[in-house]
Amino acid sequence: MRTVYVNGDFRPENEATISIFDRGFLFADAVYEVTTVLEGKLVDFYGHMARLRKSLSELQISLSLSEANLLDIHRKLVSKNNITEGLVYLQVSRGPADRDFVISEDAETPGVVLFTQEKKLVDNALAQRGQKILTVEDQRWRRCDIKTVQLLYSSLVKTEAHRKGADDVWMVLDGEVTEGSSNNAYILTEDNTIVTRALSNDILHGITRQAVLQCARELQLKVEERSFTVDEVKAAKEAFSTSATGLVNPVVEIDSDVIGKGTPGEVALRLREVYLKASLAAAV
Amino acid sequence: MRTVYVNGDFRPENEATISIFDRGFLFADAVYEVTTVLEGKLVDFYGHMARLRKSLSELQISLSLSEANLLDIHRKLVSKNNITEGLVYLQVSRGPADRDFVISEDAETPGVVLFTQEKKLVDNALAQRGQKILTVEDQRWRRCDIKTVQLLYSSLVKTEAHRKGADDVWMVLDGEVTEGSSNNAYILTEDNTIVTRALSNDILHGITRQAVLQCARELQLKVEERSFTVDEVKAAKEAFSTSATGLVNPVVEIDSDVIGKGTPGEVALRLREVYLKASLAAAV
Repeated sequence: MRTVYVNGDFRPENEATISIFDRGFLFADAVYEVTTVLEGKLVDFYGHMARLRKSLSELQISLSLSEANLLDIHRKLVSKNNITEGLVYLQVSRGPADRDFVISEDAETPGVVLFTQEKKLVDNALAQRGQKILTVEDQRWRRCDIKTVQLLYSSLVKTEAHRKGADDVWMVLDGEVTEGSSNNAYILTEDNTIVTRALSNDILHGITRQAVLQCARELQLKVEERSFTVDEVKAAKEAFSTSATGLVNPVVEIDSDVIGKGTPGEVALRLREVYLKASLAAAV
Repeated sequence: MRTVYVNGDFRPENEATISIFDRGFLFADAVYEVTTVLEGKLVDFYGHMARLRKSLSELQISLSLSEANLLDIHRKLVSKNNITEGLVYLQVSRGPADRDFVISEDAETPGVVLFTQEKKLVDNALAQRGQKILTVEDQRWRRCDIKTVQLLYSSLVKTEAHRKGADDVWMVLDGEVTEGSSNNAYILTEDNTIVTRALSNDILHGITRQAVLQCARELQLKVEERSFTVDEVKAAKEAFSTSATGLVNPVVEIDSDVIGKGTPGEVALRLREVYLKASLAAAV
């Protein structure tokens, strides 16, 4: 039985509830972050909290908890649940209010929920064999830069991909790849350039994306931030995705077409290793 | 203190909670309906329940409650809360599960939540003076025909419209009006044709829309189901919206341009009257 955090209290997970009037439940009026835990420490904690502030600010939700408070809660949950590898999930919703599309100007009390999940992230079977990807049309709302809980589309298409024997989806908007269901998407071209879509409202501004691109530059790899097509993925030497819990995750197939040699690419695996090392060194 | 319904129980609203692991809260994996109450009776109850089934089927959520069960719960809530005019809100979420984008194939127990709101619907000040509308880009996901709780964008833009002194927004996709924040949109052209966007994935298939178009046809009014531009709204004789609780709701301004005479239109008011009468006669 996990211990979770809800609005100021640590509770057993089966007693962790929120009001049915919470706007997170009625309007998807909530944002979240997922912070990776490696060797019992938090990876890029301050990066995740900075993005949380950005999401909250886009929604004009004011959260009184400081970074220090949030760090303390994260650490307590890691400790109480003996997590050495896995994640801490944090969700902040606007809180309860009588249901109305118009958000009240009165001070509301945001709902703050955190829980842990134990997960094998480093020694991960999927990273070893490489992901099979299916492409789907990107039908999400047009503010994917805000990390809200409006995740239904991503969840439905990833589920459908699993039923078809694939591991994940890459979304395609106007003929170009935006990102995965909950990760950023990359290719390595024939001339050894790492290509990933530039930051915009179309994709999540991945904390792991930022860190991995930094690693790539330190390795003297060429990086281009621009859109790419599914045909470019099929012609690529390598492909991979990045996310907090997926780290750097090789892709070996897209829409049943083999990418490169059909095995995890060298550059992807090297980036995974370098990113892991850097993350661990900086974890708090 | 209202009595609400949560997963089989009637409870005081301050004790109405759901698990933080409910996928409605974590993934916006939930659908809803709002049924109008007039003179203590439910308007177009079976229409709303039929659309609920369609939404649930799109999400592959199976709900064991029958129409008779749901009617019974609706009626009990209306009675327990002495609602003569207002609404019953019903939300069905996929229920609690450990957080994962991939939806488990195991049987889950959907979360069922219902509550009432008392509201003046017939003798409504806004309908008497007419709504002021602002247009905004339609940035919602591309399956607006499914009535999910992914309502954040609609809520944010309606709130912003209120802050600017307007009453609601109409969404514009590729230069054409889709619908309002939670209502369908109509104009009456110079040649007395009622125009409203045709059914597609771009708009909610309004239960009230269907009933009002039926009323219009019975009144021998010409109806065209096609897309229209903001310029057409500005040049229209009348404009209005329809929704369960807004009924037929005149629009008198769009982006600060006056529509027609700047007062609620004759056709809109007549439709409102005829629709109200028909609704009451058929209410259960």
